[in-house]
Amino acid sequence: MPRVSESESEFGVEKAIVLLSGGLDSVTALAMAKSQGFDCYAISFSYGQRHDIELKFAREIAKRFNVLDFKVVSVGLNSFGGSALTDKNIAVPNSSAEDGGIPVTYVPARNTVFLSLALAWAEVVGARNIFIGVNAVDYSGYPDCRLEYIKAFEALAKLATKAGVEGGEFCVHTPLIQMTKAEIISVGLGLGVDYSKTVSCYSADNEGRACGLCDACKHRKRGFEQANVVDPTRYQKNSK
Amino acid sequence: MPRVSESESEFGVEKAIVLLSGGLDSVTALAMAKSQGFDCYAISFSYGQRHDIELKFAREIAKRFNVLDFKVVSVGLNSFGGSALTDKNIAVPNSSAEDGGIPVTYVPARNTVFLSLALAWAEVVGARNIFIGVNAVDYSGYPDCRLEYIKAFEALAKLATKAGVEGGEFCVHTPLIQMTKAEIISVGLGLGVDYSKTVSCYSADNEGRACGLCDACKHRKRGFEQANVVDPTRYQKNSK
Repeated sequence: MPRVSESESEFGVEKAIVLLSGGLDSVTALAMAKSQGFDCYAISFSYGQRHDIELKFAREIAKRFNVLDFKVVSVGLNSFGGSALTDKNIAVPNSSAEDGGIPVTYVPARNTVFLSLALAWAEVVGARNIFIGVNAVDYSGYPDCRLEYIKAFEALAKLATKAGVEGGEFCVHTPLIQMTKAEIISVGLGLGVDYSKTVSCYSADNEGRACGLCDACKHRKRGFEQANVVDPTRYQKNSK
Repeated sequence: MPRVSESESEFGVEKAIVLLSGGLDSVTALAMAKSQGFDCYAISFSYGQRHDIELKFAREIAKRFNVLDFKVVSVGLNSFGGSALTDKNIAVPNSSAEDGGIPVTYVPARNTVFLSLALAWAEVVGARNIFIGVNAVDYSGYPDCRLEYIKAFEALAKLATKAGVEGGEFCVHTPLIQMTKAEIISVGLGLGVDYSKTVSCYSADNEGRACGLCDACKHRKRGFEQANVVDPTRYQKNSK
């Protein structure tokens, strides 16, 4: 019998944890991880986000992609507030930050918290790969979507874990980081992603219908336009 | 009126987030942060730990130290298992790992998750200091208690946050890292810490009484002996 390393499944396939929000980017990252031959685990977070309808979409996506396991992990980021996404007293704006700076939808340390939890699960199941759908082109200027941040997290992961001390290396894959939204959509469609079953909107309603106005909606809309693809997003009545 | 920076309180005092477990180390770290003049916020975590009685102790300590705010943040580390502290199917051993390696009480990526959440709160309240009572002398060999790990987290924090992008630097203070348990106790007593109101045991009962047998109990017991101080710990009947 061939030797199987701890980070491989019984068929010798590498395992990966994929951060799955239920949105356009993360589902594409999952499709890419699968297409690259990884055995995927998907993780979503219930963090007091106002658009927690996304979790329902994430669960359906995880099922459709036949992941080895799917978890929704609770983490009380809303204990702190400080973001329009977790504090209902802060409105979601209909445009990017006026000064081109970091908008109020930024959730302090969110990706660090999410990657840390993905790392915990990775260590338990023996995965050495984590996929995150961050994007530094058509994005909102969040600091924790940049490659230098991701590299710093990889360095931390090696020092933080038993697996790292024992010689393991964690790789945080960011397959979308240099792609435009249109490119992401094109790649995803090529891999069979059904974007009508995803939700990106910060103010999605209980049916997952998008507002059409927030930053996330604008990036997504423009992506479908530029990809020359009909936008399958279901919008709320009265949205633009 | 003197200029007050964003990371200072209205009296020009630096703010700090202190990770508080309710145990001997973290209460000493809190006492030291206070004695160094920081305005302290204390954070504890409900992560499915079997010894969650520690949260009651943490709350009392936070009150006694008159922190600006205290939060217990929920985070589902027990979703993953993989540790004797979060998975009731794995017994807490009565000795250190036999091979001198990392014991089964290691919780994958725990300090990374905790520091990430402390960082989130720090950013929201404008603190640039985080205190964590990690110790690399009388400890259990956890990788995320080493200085090189802490330094990697500081580097990450700068890249991860809006505050970092805007020029802020986060300092993770580890005042205990090179102290023996006896030294920690001596310093704490000098600062007025009442160690009878702390719980370190991994198998503490509902009253916070210690088992006297687990690794945490052994380090603590030896600390009081070596500090030549009466051990104020309340032990369970039949414990050694």
